[in-house]
Amino acid sequence: MAANDVRVKAEDLKRFMKAVFEKAGFTPDGAEAQADVLVWANLRGVDSHGAQRISWYLELVDKGHMKPRPNIQIQKETPATLLIDADFAPGPVVTVLAMRKVIEKARNVGIGWAVIRNTLHQGAMGYYSLMAAKEGMAGISIVCNPPNTAPHGARAAGVHNSPIAICVPGKRHRPLMLDMATSVAARGKLDVAEDKGISIPLGWALDKDGKPTTDPKAAAVLLPAGGGKGSGLAMMFECLTSLFVGNPLLTPVFQGKPGAQVHRQNSVVAAIDIATFTDLEQYKANADEIVEGIKALPTAEGFTEVLVPGEPEDRVQEERSRSGIPLPEGTFLKLKKASERFGVPLPAGL
Amino acid sequence: MAANDVRVKAEDLKRFMKAVFEKAGFTPDGAEAQADVLVWANLRGVDSHGAQRISWYLELVDKGHMKPRPNIQIQKETPATLLIDADFAPGPVVTVLAMRKVIEKARNVGIGWAVIRNTLHQGAMGYYSLMAAKEGMAGISIVCNPPNTAPHGARAAGVHNSPIAICVPGKRHRPLMLDMATSVAARGKLDVAEDKGISIPLGWALDKDGKPTTDPKAAAVLLPAGGGKGSGLAMMFECLTSLFVGNPLLTPVFQGKPGAQVHRQNSVVAAIDIATFTDLEQYKANADEIVEGIKALPTAEGFTEVLVPGEPEDRVQEERSRSGIPLPEGTFLKLKKASERFGVPLPAGL
Repeated sequence: MAANDVRVKAEDLKRFMKAVFEKAGFTPDGAEAQADVLVWANLRGVDSHGAQRISWYLELVDKGHMKPRPNIQIQKETPATLLIDADFAPGPVVTVLAMRKVIEKARNVGIGWAVIRNTLHQGAMGYYSLMAAKEGMAGISIVCNPPNTAPHGARAAGVHNSPIAICVPGKRHRPLMLDMATSVAARGKLDVAEDKGISIPLGWALDKDGKPTTDPKAAAVLLPAGGGKGSGLAMMFECLTSLFVGNPLLTPVFQGKPGAQVHRQNSVVAAIDIATFTDLEQYKANADEIVEGIKALPTAEGFTEVLVPGEPEDRVQEERSRSGIPLPEGTFLKLKKASERFGVPLPAGL
Repeated sequence: MAANDVRVKAEDLKRFMKAVFEKAGFTPDGAEAQADVLVWANLRGVDSHGAQRISWYLELVDKGHMKPRPNIQIQKETPATLLIDADFAPGPVVTVLAMRKVIEKARNVGIGWAVIRNTLHQGAMGYYSLMAAKEGMAGISIVCNPPNTAPHGARAAGVHNSPIAICVPGKRHRPLMLDMATSVAARGKLDVAEDKGISIPLGWALDKDGKPTTDPKAAAVLLPAGGGKGSGLAMMFECLTSLFVGNPLLTPVFQGKPGAQVHRQNSVVAAIDIATFTDLEQYKANADEIVEGIKALPTAEGFTEVLVPGEPEDRVQEERSRSGIPLPEGTFLKLKKASERFGVPLPAGL
């Protein structure tokens, strides 16, 4: 964070974002979901998925790619599953709804599994998995987009760096949360490097000719984490999401179809009810013990501490909940532009 | 394969294995499942999970760790889920049963999700996911064991290199199959290097003092694929398997409990019915197009071909189905010992 970044309270930022999205045509509930998902990402330090996205979202609405009042339809339903057509809904609008519904199903039959067709950017997927953990369940969220990552052995994009987020509740410990892309580095990390004018490590990306690059501006194709493991997972995630809703996102790009690269997403969100299987309080205590056991291991060379997944973000969240969310100049300007366009006053302190 | 390896037909090897397992006390169905899983792994070139395991399995039975006639019990059941206590069953015996049951559930309510407590070695997990694919479903299998892999940032084992196998059906193409460990390399690859007397690449493993090693004999702790991504997945897999059956496998080792390192597994197997969501034939055609699209991408430097997950194994399976399964000297001797012990004639040609 730059020394001169301003800070804003999470609730003020959220109130502002919600008001802007309402002015942009979202329903009050939809604007609430959208604002909450973005501000949650900021709170956790995942700024690439936070308030700075506002300009892009408004652009998607302006272009008609994102429908602020979509006609979301449940097209197939069983006691355990859902197929939801999002009708190009803002990601959080349909995904919060879907996660609520699978939590209900999990309460009844142990598991709920929803596939979502044609939503727009869902933001930080951990948000949805956490909803399940808060209800005493394991949450799983998976998302697919048009390709941006090279399959192992290729030098052009052929899979998306499809993130997966898994979350389960702890007792004293915050929920255990893994929220990872299947590429070595998420696109957001390259953007940050570009903004800072620094290079990226070799092995993160290829340029447009498929050559390894350390220049974030030249990076055109991401590289998969763990070689064929990352890209293999990504390929299977397309099969679990897009193919289950009859809406392939990789193949249209392979076939050079017009519009194939236009942003849209298919997704799975699932909840598995712990109490259906075992004692919930014991489960939470067991989850704590995993964290404590791993953290007590001797550190590898170059490390001073073993961090479990989600722990760095938990720490940022504690700090930012107290001290506010820092807004870099660029993000501030995006908020200012939205404020002026819609006549919504900037959050207190800005 | 060494030039002097003998070859045996898959069906002959399977008949032999089945007879041995029956003599060791398995039921005919159990022996059939056990033999089929092992020979399938051999057919696909995953020899670390094939016939050479026979001596270890017999040892597990002799020690009373593996029960050839377990009292498998369904302890919890909903229309979509199962909790199965395996009572230390041979892995294939309980896992084939579990996968059949989740396939049935998926046929009824779209998804079936089973967690299995206290089974023994399940072999190549892809086998079970493939069962679902053959029924027009997506199959998912996950397994956890006591720890053998360093969490990112640690220099001692704290997670298992928990494999996950995901499989979906193709139309002209064989089922798309990802079967991966969450470590850089599976333990079997280190064993192969040790047998051949060659070194392993830096980054695969640490020695008992937590120092990086290239000596497969000195390798004591595996390293996770993609750093925190591999070990993060492994940690969450323990939460999705062992913690759901109230049988932690990592924590007892952290706490130094006696017997904590004794081999046993917890597992998830799941099936998701494609026809519940979308047209099955179209799904299969779409899956083919992903494979074709990825294979047609330009290759990276050092590659002559882009291989999709499972493709190398598919090729070995074709060749070995025609020409038989090669048996190295060490494996042959293990079979011979079992043959002599139980008076079961060796497979034809041996």
